[in-house]
Amino acid sequence: MPKSDPCVKDLNGDSPPWCRDHRGRTYSFEEFLDLTRMFHGYPAPGVIIGAKMVDIAMNRMPSGVLFDAVCETAKCLPDAVQLLTPCTWGNGWLRVVPIGRYALTLYAKNNGRGTRVYVNPAQLEPYPETRYWFYGIKPKRKDKTDLLLQEIRQAQDRLYGVQDVRVQPEFMLKNPSDRRAICPECREAYPAGHGPVCRGCRSDTGYLVRGGD
Amino acid sequence: MPKSDPCVKDLNGDSPPWCRDHRGRTYSFEEFLDLTRMFHGYPAPGVIIGAKMVDIAMNRMPSGVLFDAVCETAKCLPDAVQLLTPCTWGNGWLRVVPIGRYALTLYAKNNGRGTRVYVNPAQLEPYPETRYWFYGIKPKRKDKTDLLLQEIRQAQDRLYGVQDVRVQPEFMLKNPSDRRAICPECREAYPAGHGPVCRGCRSDTGYLVRGGD
Repeated sequence: MPKSDPCVKDLNGDSPPWCRDHRGRTYSFEEFLDLTRMFHGYPAPGVIIGAKMVDIAMNRMPSGVLFDAVCETAKCLPDAVQLLTPCTWGNGWLRVVPIGRYALTLYAKNNGRGTRVYVNPAQLEPYPETRYWFYGIKPKRKDKTDLLLQEIRQAQDRLYGVQDVRVQPEFMLKNPSDRRAICPECREAYPAGHGPVCRGCRSDTGYLVRGGD
Repeated sequence: MPKSDPCVKDLNGDSPPWCRDHRGRTYSFEEFLDLTRMFHGYPAPGVIIGAKMVDIAMNRMPSGVLFDAVCETAKCLPDAVQLLTPCTWGNGWLRVVPIGRYALTLYAKNNGRGTRVYVNPAQLEPYPETRYWFYGIKPKRKDKTDLLLQEIRQAQDRLYGVQDVRVQPEFMLKNPSDRRAICPECREAYPAGHGPVCRGCRSDTGYLVRGGD
């Protein structure tokens, strides 16, 4: 990693960790940048911010409680949740409700109560690069990314609002395992409840060009 | 890891790797079980199968091509894609089209052409535990999981069908970055294109119980 990256310099030797995962492993800011590069492809500010939001929410969950997660946007935030909590897309413990707010909720599986953490616009005033990035006011400039990450780091937990919340009851239901049927068109298996033909073979729900090989 | 786990025994010292990631790192079957435990929480057969499917698809992509991914179910498969390719939920290069087939497609970002890999029911006949699991015929039994994983391992690439495909043009478009507005109700930022009030404050799209703290 280049020495010139201002986010890599340890400005304060005893700075607190940036975040921790559900197993209790802590990550310094630099370590979490590296983890984000590995998983997400580049050190996206949204994932770095998301890690702090997950950290704040997990610190408020009672010890030992099994929890699920909701992100209110699919942009960046789901990767912070997947890297730091047991909740992933594929295990069903993380959902995205696409309402476009930069917020996430962790809630107990047994009673739906939990914590919502959000980026609070009222708290962005002292952080101009963060504000520009958050509102998408200025085009992304690679040479400004270091400055933005530096600001996010220095702000620590001061960008975020926290709320005690409860999710709607349907978010506490497990998805039932569907019985499968064979589609008479493609001869593949699909959830029998979808109807007589699988959704992949219906013209309104497929994503492939027919005969497009 | 317990010695009694039959999937851990290296039955054949020179067995080929189970899969490789987009950086070329190979994983033995046991190593990928461990990675799945770490990320997904438990060694789900669907993720182990998904890894072989990703491996087959990546091997058919031209070298150096930038690709996106589609999973046809949110169950397990997205985690195999996220662990082995550059595509994640948060970076937008992986989508789920919820048509419920156990299939995934990797396709070139520039022309939409790629490879679809699916579990082919016609090829499951010699693998009874895999068939029971795939159709959800018998209730899950923990003591049968080892047998199922053993079968999946022994079947290697014989459970899967492969197709050359092309995705619909809209799957090659980048999601535009939305300008953000402040919601007059919650005072949070949201995509301005969603209307005068954010979707979180509309009663039909929220996921939280109002006053539910």
